[in-house]
Amino acid sequence: MIVIGERINSTRPRISEAIKNRNIAYIAREAKSQADNGADYIDVNCAMTQGDELQDIDWVMSVIQSELKDVNICIDSPNYLAIEKALKSYKGKGSIMINSITGEDERIKTIVPLAGEYNAKLVALTMDNKGMPETAEGRRDIAKNILDRVTKEGFREEDLYFDPLTRPISTEPKQAHEFLKSIPLIKKLGKVKTVCGLSNVSFGLPDRGVINSIFLAMAMQAGLDAAILDPTNKHIVSAIAGARALLCEDEYCAGYIKAYREGKLV
Amino acid sequence: MIVIGERINSTRPRISEAIKNRNIAYIAREAKSQADNGADYIDVNCAMTQGDELQDIDWVMSVIQSELKDVNICIDSPNYLAIEKALKSYKGKGSIMINSITGEDERIKTIVPLAGEYNAKLVALTMDNKGMPETAEGRRDIAKNILDRVTKEGFREEDLYFDPLTRPISTEPKQAHEFLKSIPLIKKLGKVKTVCGLSNVSFGLPDRGVINSIFLAMAMQAGLDAAILDPTNKHIVSAIAGARALLCEDEYCAGYIKAYREGKLV
Repeated sequence: MIVIGERINSTRPRISEAIKNRNIAYIAREAKSQADNGADYIDVNCAMTQGDELQDIDWVMSVIQSELKDVNICIDSPNYLAIEKALKSYKGKGSIMINSITGEDERIKTIVPLAGEYNAKLVALTMDNKGMPETAEGRRDIAKNILDRVTKEGFREEDLYFDPLTRPISTEPKQAHEFLKSIPLIKKLGKVKTVCGLSNVSFGLPDRGVINSIFLAMAMQAGLDAAILDPTNKHIVSAIAGARALLCEDEYCAGYIKAYREGKLV
Repeated sequence: MIVIGERINSTRPRISEAIKNRNIAYIAREAKSQADNGADYIDVNCAMTQGDELQDIDWVMSVIQSELKDVNICIDSPNYLAIEKALKSYKGKGSIMINSITGEDERIKTIVPLAGEYNAKLVALTMDNKGMPETAEGRRDIAKNILDRVTKEGFREEDLYFDPLTRPISTEPKQAHEFLKSIPLIKKLGKVKTVCGLSNVSFGLPDRGVINSIFLAMAMQAGLDAAILDPTNKHIVSAIAGARALLCEDEYCAGYIKAYREGKLV
């Protein structure tokens, strides 16, 4: 499973502050610690600093790339221009992922050609202008519709990552189960992949690391290909190391034993 | 998911000692603490005390039933006569499970009629006189064979619990994944259910609670109906509480929040 490190996100007050103050050391350290803890991609979100998102994302991209050569980046923005700016800022030989399109026309028309031009992978949320579906089948149907439209634009099926959208079980008890059921349904559509942002599922509950890590293990069992998460959290590290060993993605448990020896497990 | 508390097992030296010494308080406490921690069944294994298994199991059955009225019991013995003795010792109005038969003729011929007579549920290990299969499909094929033979004897399909047998990932890296894949395959055979003993999977690894709990969550996601485990272990409690909330078996997370408030989560 691909790990996308979520920590450089301007919804976190300390990150927002560090971006505003151009605190190179802080952002560089957040990038490096995630990479050191197994992040395959570093997520970058500068949408909530209340500053100029284009300048902010350009600066963050340069800081991360100074710290980590050829790092893989996941660009997370609702703003087409900020996504374009980040793509232009990228100098590495790694991989870029864009988060996200939905079933809405405008996002598809603007962002899909951009992703194609820069050879970027693309996250597609299973929602459209009617909102978020309640059922696994509803998520699959929106994914099918997006897949048809995106491939018609010439975009590569295997670079499309569907996010079936987690919702808090504290207020919507059925939604985690519907999410989990949707993963194999979506993967049956073709070579497409699945991704999710973990933490929303535990909103409003105590000991959120427990719910997040158990949910991650269950999603990995269901076939999840990538997750946006905090790779420095011990609960999460334990779930990934354990699930990889159990799914035979870590032969003879070398990665699990290394995580244990480094004191990274709960 | 049905929780079968594994702690009263004579392979544990302290339990073996307590049985030999007829230590009523110790065995009663082990039974009560498991029930208090959510065990639906109490497993009873007296096969390893090196004493008289029939006398031992009769005594343990009476101690547990004095402590917990109408408790559900899982009788765990390789010895037909000990199983029969325990069935005769049972006075409650709860449920009895017998662990276990295999595909071997003798176990089926002797234990299936006994289970039928006492209206007991029956655990069937997916192994036969050729040994344990390597693949998910191999497990399913043995289950099918056992199912055909057992139902021919008039035994109720829905009371049959197949255990696809976990093996240590430290030495057999593919076996946990094959186990997980076998669960839906076996459940497709009919109204049969699935069960597993958890802890074998983590044999030889450090921090075994992590592997056991992640494996349990993944097995619950795969559809596991029952598990033999230590319900007093915080890792296990967290996995069960988390997975139940996520699978919508604990609406509005009341059980999860209660476990948190009682300090039972990791």
